[in-house]
Amino acid sequence: MTAWAEELRLVDHHCHSVVTDELDAAAFGALLTEAPAPAGDPWDSMLGLAVRRECAPVLDLPRHAPPADYLARRRELGAPVATRRLLAATGSDALLVDHGLRAADLLGLDGLSTAAGAPVAEVVRLEAVAEDVARSGVRPADYADALVEELARRTAGAVACKSILAYRHGFDVPPGRPAPAEVAAAAAEWSRTGGRLADPVLLRHALWCGVDRGLPVQLHTGFGDPDEDLHRANPVLLTDFCRATAGTGTPIVLLHCYPYHREAAWLAQVFPHVWFDVGLASTYVGHRAAEVLAEALELAPFGRLLYSSDAFGLPELYLVAARAFRRAAARVLGGWVAEDQAAEDEVRRIAAMIAGGNARALYRVP
Amino acid sequence: MTAWAEELRLVDHHCHSVVTDELDAAAFGALLTEAPAPAGDPWDSMLGLAVRRECAPVLDLPRHAPPADYLARRRELGAPVATRRLLAATGSDALLVDHGLRAADLLGLDGLSTAAGAPVAEVVRLEAVAEDVARSGVRPADYADALVEELARRTAGAVACKSILAYRHGFDVPPGRPAPAEVAAAAAEWSRTGGRLADPVLLRHALWCGVDRGLPVQLHTGFGDPDEDLHRANPVLLTDFCRATAGTGTPIVLLHCYPYHREAAWLAQVFPHVWFDVGLASTYVGHRAAEVLAEALELAPFGRLLYSSDAFGLPELYLVAARAFRRAAARVLGGWVAEDQAAEDEVRRIAAMIAGGNARALYRVP
Amino acid sequence: MTAWAEELRLVDHHCHSVVTDELDAAAFGALLTEAPAPAGDPWDSMLGLAVRRECAPVLDLPRHAPPADYLARRRELGAPVATRRLLAATGSDALLVDHGLRAADLLGLDGLSTAAGAPVAEVVRLEAVAEDVARSGVRPADYADALVEELARRTAGAVACKSILAYRHGFDVPPGRPAPAEVAAAAAEWSRTGGRLADPVLLRHALWCGVDRGLPVQLHTGFGDPDEDLHRANPVLLTDFCRATAGTGTPIVLLHCYPYHREAAWLAQVFPHVWFDVGLASTYVGHRAAEVLAEALELAPFGRLLYSSDAFGLPELYLVAARAFRRAAARVLGGWVAEDQAAEDEVRRIAAMIAGGNARALYRVP
Repeated sequence: MTAWAEELRLVDHHCHSVVTDELDAAAFGALLTEAPAPAGDPWDSMLGLAVRRECAPVLDLPRHAPPADYLARRRELGAPVATRRLLAATGSDALLVDHGLRAADLLGLDGLSTAAGAPVAEVVRLEAVAEDVARSGVRPADYADALVEELARRTAGAVACKSILAYRHGFDVPPGRPAPAEVAAAAAEWSRTGGRLADPVLLRHALWCGVDRGLPVQLHTGFGDPDEDLHRANPVLLTDFCRATAGTGTPIVLLHCYPYHREAAWLAQVFPHVWFDVGLASTYVGHRAAEVLAEALELAPFGRLLYSSDAFGLPELYLVAARAFRRAAARVLGGWVAEDQAAEDEVRRIAAMIAGGNARALYRVP
Repeated sequence: MTAWAEELRLVDHHCHSVVTDELDAAAFGALLTEAPAPAGDPWDSMLGLAVRRECAPVLDLPRHAPPADYLARRRELGAPVATRRLLAATGSDALLVDHGLRAADLLGLDGLSTAAGAPVAEVVRLEAVAEDVARSGVRPADYADALVEELARRTAGAVACKSILAYRHGFDVPPGRPAPAEVAAAAAEWSRTGGRLADPVLLRHALWCGVDRGLPVQLHTGFGDPDEDLHRANPVLLTDFCRATAGTGTPIVLLHCYPYHREAAWLAQVFPHVWFDVGLASTYVGHRAAEVLAEALELAPFGRLLYSSDAFGLPELYLVAARAFRRAAARVLGGWVAEDQAAEDEVRRIAAMIAGGNARALYRVP
Repeated sequence: MTAWAEELRLVDHHCHSVVTDELDAAAFGALLTEAPAPAGDPWDSMLGLAVRRECAPVLDLPRHAPPADYLARRRELGAPVATRRLLAATGSDALLVDHGLRAADLLGLDGLSTAAGAPVAEVVRLEAVAEDVARSGVRPADYADALVEELARRTAGAVACKSILAYRHGFDVPPGRPAPAEVAAAAAEWSRTGGRLADPVLLRHALWCGVDRGLPVQLHTGFGDPDEDLHRANPVLLTDFCRATAGTGTPIVLLHCYPYHREAAWLAQVFPHVWFDVGLASTYVGHRAAEVLAEALELAPFGRLLYSSDAFGLPELYLVAARAFRRAAARVLGGWVAEDQAAEDEVRRIAAMIAGGNARALYRVP
């Protein structure tokens, strides 16, 4: 790989934290897939090959070591050591972390920062805040105000809000702010039924509370686990939402996007307040990350594409994402130089923007 | 091409049979396209180039022989000889054949087996069985039971069922089993109107009869002839159907999928009972089969991708598909080795899974 | 680049004209993006890199000259000289021009022909004619007849009609001809409300006036500016319209199509009266034009793909599109030869068809 790609400093603008338990083969395998109950060998995938290729040497094994050897060596070192080694090898300057999913199973943000040897900042999951507010026993008529207040409190030190509307409903909702009476009625209904936040009016309301907060609003789009309908998570379905937020001053950040990243790139070209990434895909597609990056760059302004891992649980995923990105940048942007389509200094500048510069400009990166 | 790719043994898990007539230029050309009435020169396509590249040498002509030379030589040898040579050159261990389309024009399954020098097993087209039941004069109230019975009889020696819901309606139907009263009412209506099976309730009913039968259920998805609306044949629209069948024990197999194969790969990752292929595309896209295979493998567990030709009519299509697959495997999986992203023994194992091993595990391959 | 690709003669079957003003950095940058109000540096994109790579040498600068140098040299030469040099370097035999957008800001067709050193013919924008008819004060009851008459007059010397239904509404309209009473009612409503043509009945009516005119009907599909909803501009949504026009004798031409060009290619395969291009994308995606071309050719009959630039405003865009196409043809079709998938004479013949031969067969190219 080209030296400049090895040396890029990364800002991972969207990830989660790592599990703290020692993992047996089944538990490790379950974190290698988006399937709730995987069938077959989870190592038999692009991601599995990438873990063996990129992570085995960091644990002192040969490249492509068999999964059983890898897991044995990982246990021998212990999860804390393996985690530190793998995270350190990513070359990250900062991690922006959504800690709203299964936080109890994961290393806390301070611990993650220590393990990674890099500062960590929080991305606040809007639905998690809304659910805390609802569970607090607030009266339905006071729900909206209470959410605004609680969100202000929880985001005081945060860098972004995040919406999982894609998982809870899909993007087929009206783009605008719901009316207060609608919100109160839906909150009343939710107070009767309980459960997680899934009402489309309240999901939209939470999203707009995020917009009003003024921090960048990240939205999960594209593939993920089967809680979602993939085609209802196509970022292009947010076009009216992009129009509706164009005058607010709040940046909109489309996460992941795959396999709809060409459509996301168009949104980033035509709306000045829209950013996106191809995280998660970078992790899962392994050696194909170069193609995904190249597709994303077809229409995207270079200033609007961000690096992320969207890693969750396994420290291996942070490293695979980082290596996949470096390889992809070397191949795609390096290819422009090799074929005399761009000068090398330009290409290095553009790679540094995507790796971290754009995120530094967008967020208050610690 | 790498030797290991040349030597892969194929199980073609979805194809049709070949025409028996000697073909003039117009008849041959009509089988080179999905257009009902082609305009222009049907050889001017990726498929046309691939036939000239792959099949001409098998008929003792130079590579890239002109179409007229090819057709003359084919007539000289006679269709039976050409068929035997072309099918034998595919390197197939077994063919799983949907014989429910224009069967009267095609070689019977025994004849196909002899010509191919490989065992053949049947895939039973659900709509064809339903139409036979309807034509038998069964009373509408007895239609449902009669279909179950006839399907049991027709699938006794079969390896799979197949649905062409995509052609007859599209995937925009409720995912679940229709109620008996709905089925009876729709059957009564059909008994009055006659014609081919196109009622969405009865199509769903036939599909669920297939699910209940317990054999793998194949569904046509993605591109085909213009009887279908391509966007209503996107396999991702089967997400709710995948959820509905998750507990049944019946495997669901998404056929073809192109150009929605990335979405199909996601379904195969998140649902343990879902398999898919990029057949038909492998035939039509010629030299681009490598890119389609690479895209399909981005998210797919290696154990869930199957080889098929979806060839119909021309023995040339079986060979083009087989050669396209071998070249694609050599380029894509061989590329992982060349770039040290995977070890060669792993890659050969994975290629053998896709070529035939996965089908052997899924079907009772003869 | 291969010599044969350099020597291809182009027929640009869909473009606009160029601005006549001297451009400052802001005005130039605004024409490098589909964003109405770009944020960030518009040169930081594949298109920006391509302008620096392809156009700088034509203005006597080194490849990859910095934007400021480029703009300074352009001003030094003056817009007329720069325009002539850039257009001449495209190697175009003819330009088919939609002059219905911001015509007052652009060079007239005669001026464009002189600057390009090539004949120019007109593509008539249906909505522009309809708006002129409406503004003429015609009675709503006479609107339909007046439009037919005016269209006949305006297309007397034209080569095609063009619809921007995608921008004004999206393709989610009934495919057939609207009834006369519907049209009269909608015309009456429009005469009250005024404004630009956006009523779906009248848009369909204008489109069918184009179909009835008998010249090829071009439709904007795929990406463009944010007036449109990209997913409602997917050409596959025109499937029923393709069915409805199949018997009319009027060719349907799908413009741009990206990122839905694989779906467009399927339409071109299965409907004998459908053509398409990947213009606009060729311009914007820069060095990735080869991949887009390769994807478009997967299913497309070689006789149905057309070259276009869809350039608007900047003469640079005509040259970037032309160079991108030549490079893409050299890489993709040349690659078939290099890997012995097709013979070189075939490949040169196919490249010449796409570059201009298909357009000559489809239109009365001057």
